[in-house]
Amino acid sequence: MELGLVGLGKMGGNMRERIRRAGHTVVGYDRNADIADVDSLKALVDSLPTPRVVWVMVPAGAPTASTIDDLAELLSPGDVVVDGGNSRWTDDIAHAKKLAAKSIGFVDCGVSGGVWGLENGYALMCGGDAADVAKAKPVFDALKPEGDSGYVHAGKVGAGHFAKMVHNGIEYAMMQAFAEGWELLEASDEVTDVREVFRSWQEGTVIRSWLLDLAVRALDDDEHLDKLKGYAQDSGEGRWTVEAAIDLAVPLPAITASLFARFASRQDDSPSMKMVAALRNQFGGHAVESTK
Amino acid sequence: MELGLVGLGKMGGNMRERIRRAGHTVVGYDRNADIADVDSLKALVDSLPTPRVVWVMVPAGAPTASTIDDLAELLSPGDVVVDGGNSRWTDDIAHAKKLAAKSIGFVDCGVSGGVWGLENGYALMCGGDAADVAKAKPVFDALKPEGDSGYVHAGKVGAGHFAKMVHNGIEYAMMQAFAEGWELLEASDEVTDVREVFRSWQEGTVIRSWLLDLAVRALDDDEHLDKLKGYAQDSGEGRWTVEAAIDLAVPLPAITASLFARFASRQDDSPSMKMVAALRNQFGGHAVESTK
Amino acid sequence: MELGLVGLGKMGGNMRERIRRAGHTVVGYDRNADIADVDSLKALVDSLPTPRVVWVMVPAGAPTASTIDDLAELLSPGDVVVDGGNSRWTDDIAHAKKLAAKSIGFVDCGVSGGVWGLENGYALMCGGDAADVAKAKPVFDALKPEGDSGYVHAGKVGAGHFAKMVHNGIEYAMMQAFAEGWELLEASDEVTDVREVFRSWQEGTVIRSWLLDLAVRALDDDEHLDKLKGYAQDSGEGRWTVEAAIDLAVPLPAITASLFARFASRQDDSPSMKMVAALRNQFGGHAVESTK
Amino acid sequence: MELGLVGLGKMGGNMRERIRRAGHTVVGYDRNADIADVDSLKALVDSLPTPRVVWVMVPAGAPTASTIDDLAELLSPGDVVVDGGNSRWTDDIAHAKKLAAKSIGFVDCGVSGGVWGLENGYALMCGGDAADVAKAKPVFDALKPEGDSGYVHAGKVGAGHFAKMVHNGIEYAMMQAFAEGWELLEASDEVTDVREVFRSWQEGTVIRSWLLDLAVRALDDDEHLDKLKGYAQDSGEGRWTVEAAIDLAVPLPAITASLFARFASRQDDSPSMKMVAALRNQFGGHAVESTK
Repeated sequence: MELGLVGLGKMGGNMRERIRRAGHTVVGYDRNADIADVDSLKALVDSLPTPRVVWVMVPAGAPTASTIDDLAELLSPGDVVVDGGNSRWTDDIAHAKKLAAKSIGFVDCGVSGGVWGLENGYALMCGGDAADVAKAKPVFDALKPEGDSGYVHAGKVGAGHFAKMVHNGIEYAMMQAFAEGWELLEASDEVTDVREVFRSWQEGTVIRSWLLDLAVRALDDDEHLDKLKGYAQDSGEGRWTVEAAIDLAVPLPAITASLFARFASRQDDSPSMKMVAALRNQFGGHAVESTK
Repeated sequence: MELGLVGLGKMGGNMRERIRRAGHTVVGYDRNADIADVDSLKALVDSLPTPRVVWVMVPAGAPTASTIDDLAELLSPGDVVVDGGNSRWTDDIAHAKKLAAKSIGFVDCGVSGGVWGLENGYALMCGGDAADVAKAKPVFDALKPEGDSGYVHAGKVGAGHFAKMVHNGIEYAMMQAFAEGWELLEASDEVTDVREVFRSWQEGTVIRSWLLDLAVRALDDDEHLDKLKGYAQDSGEGRWTVEAAIDLAVPLPAITASLFARFASRQDDSPSMKMVAALRNQFGGHAVESTK
Repeated sequence: MELGLVGLGKMGGNMRERIRRAGHTVVGYDRNADIADVDSLKALVDSLPTPRVVWVMVPAGAPTASTIDDLAELLSPGDVVVDGGNSRWTDDIAHAKKLAAKSIGFVDCGVSGGVWGLENGYALMCGGDAADVAKAKPVFDALKPEGDSGYVHAGKVGAGHFAKMVHNGIEYAMMQAFAEGWELLEASDEVTDVREVFRSWQEGTVIRSWLLDLAVRALDDDEHLDKLKGYAQDSGEGRWTVEAAIDLAVPLPAITASLFARFASRQDDSPSMKMVAALRNQFGGHAVESTK
Repeated sequence: MELGLVGLGKMGGNMRERIRRAGHTVVGYDRNADIADVDSLKALVDSLPTPRVVWVMVPAGAPTASTIDDLAELLSPGDVVVDGGNSRWTDDIAHAKKLAAKSIGFVDCGVSGGVWGLENGYALMCGGDAADVAKAKPVFDALKPEGDSGYVHAGKVGAGHFAKMVHNGIEYAMMQAFAEGWELLEASDEVTDVREVFRSWQEGTVIRSWLLDLAVRALDDDEHLDKLKGYAQDSGEGRWTVEAAIDLAVPLPAITASLFARFASRQDDSPSMKMVAALRNQFGGHAVESTK
């Protein structure tokens, strides 16, 4: 089939390559003319047979919203837009509504895979009407990993990004699980070879997993992680996961603890612990001296 | 009545003074001869009429255990030892058993009040047999604050220190509550006078409390707590509280979060967040570069 | 002064009474004609001298928004609207903007006090321009408790409800602190009189507070809380507090734990613990039997 | 080699089988004569060539301690005892000391694998002196899974059980991660096929893992886990993990949240939430009625 692909950055560029390897035609557009196949969004739309399928792979938020606004003007009834970026699922519902007013379909698609995706395939979670999903199905098949899993039509519009968001929330807590275990082993006097403990877990244990494999790779590179600072960004999906949980009154203690650990990792000093120190100072023995 | 008091440090010294102001006789012993009334534990015991009441106010752990060992040799059947230190409640049970073998009674007494106790009185939580508690009751009455509360016979041996331990666990979470709220207010763009917000809460709110009063005192001294580092020790009772909860299968999420926040406050860098950073590095875009 | 008051429910009715006791004139309007002083919002506006001060005390969300829409039509430049309801602080900013377009001032005011407020006064936290706050100041003085605290001009528009929201977040964690401590004491074999332990803490301890006093009242009424189900609603402010923290990247472990404990308290069974049970079943000894 | 194996229950019996398949001789003793190879511990010891290796696979605590006491009497200098049960690592240190007094070696070995171990191999984490570990190495090789991992000499005596304990702590938090994510997906209106979302994650995602595979198996059997109660036991290692963290001042928020979620899952009603409800009742609108 022929696909229009908007956004050819690290992710989009690799995805174009993987789709082409599967034998499909991809017309890619990017603001950076050096990597684009056409020089405008209009040229991209004009080059595709109808019903068109246009995959949007640009940053979430304003860039995605404005791309969808532009496509709403350029596309025809019966075409389908797939948002494969990291949009918040609540945005999907607004985007679908805008396109539906012009009889253009919308599918949201959460994509996992990072730099490994070109070779191993991308896990895809999509949401939308079955008819719209069907139009893009050959692309999903090209992008997904080999085997029975790696792709799901999760439900209504928004379900794809919702599922991807929850995937990332789970990922946060799994990373935190390994991180806490590693810190505890490193603190032990008895355990003298923590790296090899991690390596041993790769077979036969309950916790064997790709993240464990990555942890072993990291420890092979830097046994005590001395080269790294204990500083972790968060990408947004962790926050949205907790916010969705609050909306739905679902308790998420481990995932939220993982998010808060990242927030704390970025503070030079903890304001809240200043207040704890201040209160200890007030009622403890040094109170009298320091408040005079 | 006449009381023997072992340990005349910051707490013990002030307690001797408060008991004397109530009209009782206190014979105090301390390793520091400058502040002691007698020059040996034996002299203290010999100076008291029977049945004797000896209050032990020395550091928890080995010092308390060895003092009780010595008293077991020196005292007579029918005498009572009160441990007013910060002993773990599980130690009380061992101490009571050792003294019971010589027909000497034992009362554990958790004491709250810090530097404010001399003037305001000390909150007392004790555990033991009613007959033993009765022998020390005049001292409890002298030490406790004015009014109906501030003293309780909480239950069996160990109950006093258990209750005091839980008091401190609650204290940890209350301090954390104010600390989190303060940090959030300081982070807000809208709220420009956080100190006055705290002050306003001292009357008419659900959260009015002595800890809030102390927070206002601290902020009056140093509005943004710039002089303090976000570093908080823990005294042991917080840890014991969580350990008791684990033994009894009681979930304590807020108290434990408060304890862990203190642990984290004392780390220069977080080992667990190094691992999170390492894992992010492995599966994110920089993985290929950094692990080659 | 003369004040217009919209909303005469449990809170608004008591506030009208307290303001009148302070010697001011209050014209109250409510959809319920039985308790209203005038029969329309227009009549309320017409009855007030300019510059008018109208206090809105209706449910947060749509009712408050539509009342402010109506007042934007009825009021004159220089008048001031005070929103004393439980609005989210982000709503305030929208409301202020709408009124500003007509040169009408806006002050948001978080109110604490509940059923005790009529007698003891209401703690007030307000946000807005100094000139607008000044116009309503006599009412704030009438409503606040006696003494130096109980009222604050916390900052810009939104700061009042933000401060009140944080107050409630702190309240959640303080309640959770006492609740966890109570559960642990009740689980102990040693402590046989938990109610009296709580009573004893009312004087001389670090944790003495109004919430502790309320806990003692509750235990006096029902020593082991047998009449109650462990089911707790949340009013919205706890959720908003955590959401604000996520926006500002502030870790709030204890407050969030308290919110999640309420969510969990309302579940008949825990879906997440079904999954934990299912996983234990899969890898444990019973797996073979149950999955055949 | 020849191995003595004490304890032939579900785990021990399968391990005997796997060791025999590897070509070694196993002499098994069990209190249940129907499954034992010899009729006493003495007969087991007498049947082995020196230096003997005896693997203890009985319940942790008193049964393991008394078996080790008996072996201390029966074995000879240079023999080695391996404790493959779920002992707490602190017990190992006491056991090693007792055996060392008779010049008998001790190796602690944490074993993971459950019912899958016979076919797939058991992950092994051991601690002790290199010379003692070497004597049992052929057995470790027989039990471990194929491949480079699945076995580690983690450090000193206690390190094996410490590492296994941390493995289980990590396992708790990973299970909780999937459980929280599953609950959130099930609560969503958009996601209509949660089971297939889980299945899709098995390839190409960051969270692919054996536990995820087990979750899919469980959902294939019972799509919404309707047959299960949200009730989860804990085996002890989770508690020990948190206790070790408290000893070492290591914050473990996600692992501890997972443990507390299990505690809560076993309560018919939450005592702490009764107290929260009581406090809400006291300061809310119903306070006056219910406390009169």
